[in-house]
Amino acid sequence: MLASLVPIAPDSPFPLENLPLGVFRRSSGAITVGTALGDQAVDLAELARRGAFVADGRLAETLLAGAQAGALNPLMAAGGEVRRTLRQRLQRLFSTELRDQAGVLAATLEPLAGVELMLPAVIGDYTDFYSSKHHAFNVGSMMRGPEQALQPNWVELPVGYHGRAGTVVVSGTPIRRPRGQTMKDGDARPTFGPSRRLDIELETGCFIAGETRLGETVPMAGARERIFGYALLNDWSARDIQKWEYVPLGPFLAKNFATSVSGWVVTPEALAPFEVPGEPQQPEPLEYLREPGPRGYDVTLELWLKPAGASEAVRIIESNMRHLYWSPRQQLVHHASNGCRLRSGDLLGSGTISGPEKSSRGCLLELTWGGREPVTLPDGSTRTFLEDGDEVILTGFTKGPDYRIGFGECRGTILPA
Amino acid sequence: MLASLVPIAPDSPFPLENLPLGVFRRSSGAITVGTALGDQAVDLAELARRGAFVADGRLAETLLAGAQAGALNPLMAAGGEVRRTLRQRLQRLFSTELRDQAGVLAATLEPLAGVELMLPAVIGDYTDFYSSKHHAFNVGSMMRGPEQALQPNWVELPVGYHGRAGTVVVSGTPIRRPRGQTMKDGDARPTFGPSRRLDIELETGCFIAGETRLGETVPMAGARERIFGYALLNDWSARDIQKWEYVPLGPFLAKNFATSVSGWVVTPEALAPFEVPGEPQQPEPLEYLREPGPRGYDVTLELWLKPAGASEAVRIIESNMRHLYWSPRQQLVHHASNGCRLRSGDLLGSGTISGPEKSSRGCLLELTWGGREPVTLPDGSTRTFLEDGDEVILTGFTKGPDYRIGFGECRGTILPA
Repeated sequence: MLASLVPIAPDSPFPLENLPLGVFRRSSGAITVGTALGDQAVDLAELARRGAFVADGRLAETLLAGAQAGALNPLMAAGGEVRRTLRQRLQRLFSTELRDQAGVLAATLEPLAGVELMLPAVIGDYTDFYSSKHHAFNVGSMMRGPEQALQPNWVELPVGYHGRAGTVVVSGTPIRRPRGQTMKDGDARPTFGPSRRLDIELETGCFIAGETRLGETVPMAGARERIFGYALLNDWSARDIQKWEYVPLGPFLAKNFATSVSGWVVTPEALAPFEVPGEPQQPEPLEYLREPGPRGYDVTLELWLKPAGASEAVRIIESNMRHLYWSPRQQLVHHASNGCRLRSGDLLGSGTISGPEKSSRGCLLELTWGGREPVTLPDGSTRTFLEDGDEVILTGFTKGPDYRIGFGECRGTILPA
Repeated sequence: MLASLVPIAPDSPFPLENLPLGVFRRSSGAITVGTALGDQAVDLAELARRGAFVADGRLAETLLAGAQAGALNPLMAAGGEVRRTLRQRLQRLFSTELRDQAGVLAATLEPLAGVELMLPAVIGDYTDFYSSKHHAFNVGSMMRGPEQALQPNWVELPVGYHGRAGTVVVSGTPIRRPRGQTMKDGDARPTFGPSRRLDIELETGCFIAGETRLGETVPMAGARERIFGYALLNDWSARDIQKWEYVPLGPFLAKNFATSVSGWVVTPEALAPFEVPGEPQQPEPLEYLREPGPRGYDVTLELWLKPAGASEAVRIIESNMRHLYWSPRQQLVHHASNGCRLRSGDLLGSGTISGPEKSSRGCLLELTWGGREPVTLPDGSTRTFLEDGDEVILTGFTKGPDYRIGFGECRGTILPA
């Protein structure tokens, strides 16, 4: 673990190797862009005001613009070199350069417990993919049987659709159970009422860095530079509404009532040591989608449920980013392949990330096999889908030789309809 | 026709009864919000600066905020009363009050030919519906035969999906033919290349006024006040890409490369005299979707094609807003029924508006019945789908006893891939 002026506990998710980026409200009320270090939040705009980035080109003004906007978009637009410069400077500042700068440290640090994380970016467009083969196979098997589980297009392209940017909310935002039309088996007409099959989807999201023009594409060779970082994402889903509405134009009201993301965005630089080959792709993708390097990250993803009335959360799903079949770069290249404009702050959801084990199925629909195999909780009660008052917490982390990279958390509690 | 200080030709689309709203760049370079009157563009921010709205509460500052933002969003957020106050004031100003104000008129008016219309709003989210029964029936018949043309959910709810807000462009923006994956009949693998079935969709769009909170719904009684106005919309579609990608999550790259809208937004007040009952709804919708009043507008919609190399455009489609089955209010109420947040400037597309006649089929897919019945053009050439260099022009208008309400136009020319 890199030595830090700020004490870092051995199991801290936020050592100097991580330096996730986010937007938060300080206890003073000021909104700023910052990072996390040990148990401290670091106000990067305040560091800029105190001259810490004076030798780093446009970095200081980019951070100040971010604080002004209450969003990471200016930093996203500035490109990968600026983000990497920030990382290197922060590692120097907090390993040695600020050693005798008690005043600067006092002004820029504040316990994480005292700040309020906000949505990290102004999200112009939100796209959700469907890129875990285990997930697509499980859902397809339930609907059409295992022989025809995967649609023919699934292995040829990263299937995706547009979600609603305006209802992406930050971790901690309560989630109101949606009402909607559902069709019960045997009924002649649908009924309108609260969803009875409210589900979670364990995903990650990546934020886009930089803007493309209308009609411009992104070749695979340029895709890594267009990814700013990764967050945890919970694509809340009302399965009964989805089942009735989704043919032929896809999910709509079943999904767009809310999508939760973590406040911290973990950079590709922090995750670089944890790249893994990823799932084998057979058939080989068409040329524009071929990615020569590693396609996966070895990042453990967990979903914890704190049932209504319970005092403790229980882990019910453990999956891993490595289970994605289509990588975030492949998603991005496909997305731009028709000339669709991408903007800084656009969010690409991975789709539910399920692994091969039952315990790694990334949503309740799969975990309970359509509600037929309820999950038993420690107090003996069971769950098929979410109940009012249930709290859901996503976490993500990976481990180096002597340090840990954490994603923080993405949580939400279900309010009654 | 209302008497106007500004000369209005008898067939002008922009009499004092219309007063569409938009954003434009003046020949001076200044960006402003304004309206159209006869053959003149009216700079509403300049009118505000000159005190024309001094007795109208917050109207002046709302218009100045719009000019500052280069968007109608502040006016959309201000609500229906402010929009109606603006209309009444403009009718008084340009019928009598500005009679002796040559200086004000000179500063605020400029020939329409000299201004550049811009996108009318910052569009947070764009949703496209599928609300013409004739269109859904025709497309379903081609895919599944007439007996199973309509999916069971179609008559119970306004089917819709999220499009891409970041690629909604204003009339006049050239449209690059998209590349993408398509699967040819009999092939084992898809190929990647320029779309060969590039289509238009004749639609209207409505802009949302005001914001709802996450979890808030909009009852039918409040729906009219949440619609700011209507524009022409062309939902460019690559049918070959769509066919391969759309199962199971809906259209994605087949649609999101570009959506064109007209620069002028026609208000509900201008269209009020032209309300008609709309298409009969059978079965009666569920209670939350029932709309007691008229559901349609008698607005003629035309699609003109100017083939590459031709000197004149030819009308190939004539449809009407009255052919919508689900009204814009029903779309809006359904959209918010799950608590999905709506924001000022959000855009709801109607879906392709087709009527019962062949000439009123609102897209080439229907008009040429999947490419099997080409359209013959005046020079003897034919079209199934769009060719490079083709220009497409949508127009819309309705006629009162002695005046005409026009929507301007929504045009785009196809550039090669």
